[in-house]
Amino acid sequence: MFIIRELQEVRDMARGAVLLGTGGGGDPYIGELFVGEQIKRGNFPKVIGADELEDDAFVLSIAGVGAPTVGSENLISEKMLMRLLAYAEAHFGRRVDALISAEIGGSNSIMPLALSAISGVPVLDADGIGRAMPQIEMTTFSIYGCPASPCILTDALGNVVTVDAISDRKVEDICRAVASALGAHVTSAIYPMTGKQAREVAVQRSLSLAYGIGRCIRTARESSSNIFDALLAYLNDWDGRHARILFDGKITDVIHETRDGWHWGQATLSGLGDNRDECVIEIRNEFLIARVNGEPVAMVPDLITVLDRETGEPLTGSMLAYGQRVKVLGYAADPMLCRPEALEVVGPRMFGIDLDFVPLAQSAAAASRVGAKATASDPVA
Amino acid sequence: MFIIRELQEVRDMARGAVLLGTGGGGDPYIGELFVGEQIKRGNFPKVIGADELEDDAFVLSIAGVGAPTVGSENLISEKMLMRLLAYAEAHFGRRVDALISAEIGGSNSIMPLALSAISGVPVLDADGIGRAMPQIEMTTFSIYGCPASPCILTDALGNVVTVDAISDRKVEDICRAVASALGAHVTSAIYPMTGKQAREVAVQRSLSLAYGIGRCIRTARESSSNIFDALLAYLNDWDGRHARILFDGKITDVIHETRDGWHWGQATLSGLGDNRDECVIEIRNEFLIARVNGEPVAMVPDLITVLDRETGEPLTGSMLAYGQRVKVLGYAADPMLCRPEALEVVGPRMFGIDLDFVPLAQSAAAASRVGAKATASDPVA
Repeated sequence: MFIIRELQEVRDMARGAVLLGTGGGGDPYIGELFVGEQIKRGNFPKVIGADELEDDAFVLSIAGVGAPTVGSENLISEKMLMRLLAYAEAHFGRRVDALISAEIGGSNSIMPLALSAISGVPVLDADGIGRAMPQIEMTTFSIYGCPASPCILTDALGNVVTVDAISDRKVEDICRAVASALGAHVTSAIYPMTGKQAREVAVQRSLSLAYGIGRCIRTARESSSNIFDALLAYLNDWDGRHARILFDGKITDVIHETRDGWHWGQATLSGLGDNRDECVIEIRNEFLIARVNGEPVAMVPDLITVLDRETGEPLTGSMLAYGQRVKVLGYAADPMLCRPEALEVVGPRMFGIDLDFVPLAQSAAAASRVGAKATASDPVA
Repeated sequence: MFIIRELQEVRDMARGAVLLGTGGGGDPYIGELFVGEQIKRGNFPKVIGADELEDDAFVLSIAGVGAPTVGSENLISEKMLMRLLAYAEAHFGRRVDALISAEIGGSNSIMPLALSAISGVPVLDADGIGRAMPQIEMTTFSIYGCPASPCILTDALGNVVTVDAISDRKVEDICRAVASALGAHVTSAIYPMTGKQAREVAVQRSLSLAYGIGRCIRTARESSSNIFDALLAYLNDWDGRHARILFDGKITDVIHETRDGWHWGQATLSGLGDNRDECVIEIRNEFLIARVNGEPVAMVPDLITVLDRETGEPLTGSMLAYGQRVKVLGYAADPMLCRPEALEVVGPRMFGIDLDFVPLAQSAAAASRVGAKATASDPVA
């Protein structure tokens, strides 16, 4: 068990969660403030590994559903979180043994820590996606057989809705509609599972990864070492998943549009100095695909993150603005997201991109082959 | 206790329910078919008076929520109704002693009879409004302190949603959103109440009234007596509430519009022969207000019904069409709807009509006084 006693740890974790949020997932800042306040009062969130749980332990996710921007206005309250826990325990007829983050990316990474601080229920060092995704059925929980419902939704006023649906796609439809009726944002107790399931269907050690990423950026910044070298070294050292800088440049155009409950957008980046390369990133809440000079270099479910090129601060899609100087990071998704059954739920085609998934490592190899070939056959070179 | 053994009784009740539906409430035809089929199989719905219940008996409404037109396509199934009952009994932790109609007008009058036929649970001879109303909070249950939630919604596929809201206005918002997410129509187990509450907050004897109205129209038609004389005599004899023919004419213009989940419309009627009077009826699911030559003659919550002038068949708002020859009936609402606290919920202003409620009996008296005065002072007369 790991007890979070320092606000710095929460801040690092939140920074890492924005990176893993791959442009979406909402801003964890409100959750960070809430947990920071609890830490000041001596209420410390506890984190445990899934291997510390009994097979039949009862595990629940706590996650915001709805528009992240409204989530930032609709502050988390102790009363609301404790009501949700009490209602869930009454509904399922048993005590909750551990909480789990539905997605480590963005604001939902911090929500279970907030409830842990006030209730004493530990949070698992694991999550349901290893990044952020826009829909309830897009989690490893859902993909590998742990349904989202029965789940319970509540708002700040005390309205409570329980959903028991025949598929997680329907849970998504119903929860989205309820969130909309209750002011565009609700908090859910969702994906009830056993300890055994938590070991099998979750992405493991993701709170540790978020914390490590956030700390790595901070310490490199504090010691004036190269933030991106440090970050790439950290990510490659973590579990060997491919990570690389896809583009280095400035934002020359951004389109933001809020439509059908989503944040849609497109960012265009140009190379610095004499570099005439162009990078275009498509956004639907999360960064979906990055193309350099028209060629895809990274695509969902692999992670694409945009970071400030001076401070290494990860940026969300809605923070992108003209003139920002940024680096675009590609980071391979957890292998659980890249199996065929997972790609049917979280692959590029599910986001309207008519391409087969090409893993980041493979596109890098192809690019270097093309690059080598072009160089070799280029008569001008 | 009264056992419904004849299809004719269900048909009469459905016809009366269309009249009491005051243009809205949906078409009870599908429910009528379902109950007719059950009667053929020997499964008879049972009707009891609220005075036959113990004070602490457990009573529930069964009602459709959503677009009535979709309700007519989304057929009632035994499986769905029994699932709803089982889920409700599990949720509340007790057996349901009696069912009650949330609104006697339209399709929701028949829904509890359908479940009664297959489950054996009796239906109370009472309802929550004495007519049809478009929103969940517009019932005497809600107005007189029996909240709509916790309530349970289900669809034909097996999705189940439980709502526990802080107000019936919120129940309305949430249920409307859930219905929309589940294909525009769901069936609800709603307004849980005790036997004592059923005696205090319900409009009594409304199944009997619907049946009596339907039978009166049929028997007058069969015996070739004047249907409207018979109907007015029946209604006045029922409990002395004022009823009269507001207009006799033909439909010369109708506007139908489906917007924001409602059926909006306006029907214009002209007098027959030399009669140059004009009657305009405004529709929002139900008939809201009837004006003759610009003067209001009846308004919500009083009942306005349009009937075929040859057969006496009551018509719903969406059935109105150019050229139909009809009579417009005004029928005073149950006194429970006319108290100040009720008018705050179901009065004309709640439907965007900027008028104080003038009861039908009073507008009749005013009209006859104006008529008398005009005649006396008319120099040409």
